[in-house]
Amino acid sequence: MVLHEPKSMGKVPEPTLRRLPWYLSNAKLVKEKGGKYISSTQISAQINIDASQIAKDLSFVNVTGRTRVGYDVDMLIRALEDFLGFTDKHKAYLFGVGSLGGALLRDSGLVHFGLEIVGAFDVDPDVIGKNIGGIPVYHSDEFEQRMRMDEVRIGVLTVPINIAQEITDKMIEGGIKAIWNFTPFRIRVPEHIVVQNTSLYAHLAVMFNRLNVEMRKE
Amino acid sequence: MVLHEPKSMGKVPEPTLRRLPWYLSNAKLVKEKGGKYISSTQISAQINIDASQIAKDLSFVNVTGRTRVGYDVDMLIRALEDFLGFTDKHKAYLFGVGSLGGALLRDSGLVHFGLEIVGAFDVDPDVIGKNIGGIPVYHSDEFEQRMRMDEVRIGVLTVPINIAQEITDKMIEGGIKAIWNFTPFRIRVPEHIVVQNTSLYAHLAVMFNRLNVEMRKE
Repeated sequence: MVLHEPKSMGKVPEPTLRRLPWYLSNAKLVKEKGGKYISSTQISAQINIDASQIAKDLSFVNVTGRTRVGYDVDMLIRALEDFLGFTDKHKAYLFGVGSLGGALLRDSGLVHFGLEIVGAFDVDPDVIGKNIGGIPVYHSDEFEQRMRMDEVRIGVLTVPINIAQEITDKMIEGGIKAIWNFTPFRIRVPEHIVVQNTSLYAHLAVMFNRLNVEMRKE
Repeated sequence: MVLHEPKSMGKVPEPTLRRLPWYLSNAKLVKEKGGKYISSTQISAQINIDASQIAKDLSFVNVTGRTRVGYDVDMLIRALEDFLGFTDKHKAYLFGVGSLGGALLRDSGLVHFGLEIVGAFDVDPDVIGKNIGGIPVYHSDEFEQRMRMDEVRIGVLTVPINIAQEITDKMIEGGIKAIWNFTPFRIRVPEHIVVQNTSLYAHLAVMFNRLNVEMRKE
């Protein structure tokens, strides 16, 4: 077994972190087509981002390219997956087994990118005790007790907005360190708690607005 | 019936569009608690954004507040929902009924925010002909024919990355004007086509990195 240095030593800029998965999927495609090497210039031609930007982004990742040849595709894929945390298993709980919460429990894709939801919490007797997508649903009151057994640091927040803050506070009290917030509510947390907002509704709003603008041009 | 001006006249800045749903959910909470008025200062205290920024964002929306009283909560909610396009029904097709695609079909929440998925396409005989979350799944070959019947402008992209570009091209050929891209692949489109990227995996990568940074501080 090889001991690894802790991944992603510093605080990598968020735009870089958001672009790296694009390079990863590009490298996977090249590999699928039988390619052995890939250069930032080639990636650039495919995804329309400056080659110098790509090289700069990849400089955060522990991978070295060779002049005129580029990166070894296998090495680049492994380095990116490692760096992005996709090869680790990060255990998580999900809070709020409504429509979106249930959908996320059924999305087995998340586990391939390092997020393993090991339990869900709700107060609805219709879902408590069930398995959704293979994940057990517990009563919310069991959260603190479960926390002592499982090694969970991440909470996925998919509750209604009127309890979003209350559940957030409880999660943090119980020991959750990072919250993936799918609600359209802006939660307040202490400084050391990580929050990642993924509001599908905000993204929809942007898309509708842009579509309206384009439609009016026609 | 009242005739409305076309919504969101100009190109509203994306950060504004992303913040407006926060104000909306805040207004809904105030209403739920029996409040009649809400000011940008009150919203500011709740969600930790500058009151002046909030006032500026809300100036894009067709709603007027009253000095020392603020906005009428009902009016603000209606104006925001209208402006964000959540009160319209935007028909959409979904492409790729895998794990994430199936999960989105089951998420009935999207329709409350204006996105009505009316059909899905795949090539897998196991899902073709089925109804998932009440939405019929068709063979991908039927797409162009269906497009002529339904009035659909939005495509939700949840296919594997190796066919993401190919399916994108087909969607656009068939008449799709806006693409909600859930794949971690950066698709290329003509300038007039709207793309909204929602890569859950990119968000995960950001969260894992930030969590690692915090953990190393302890």
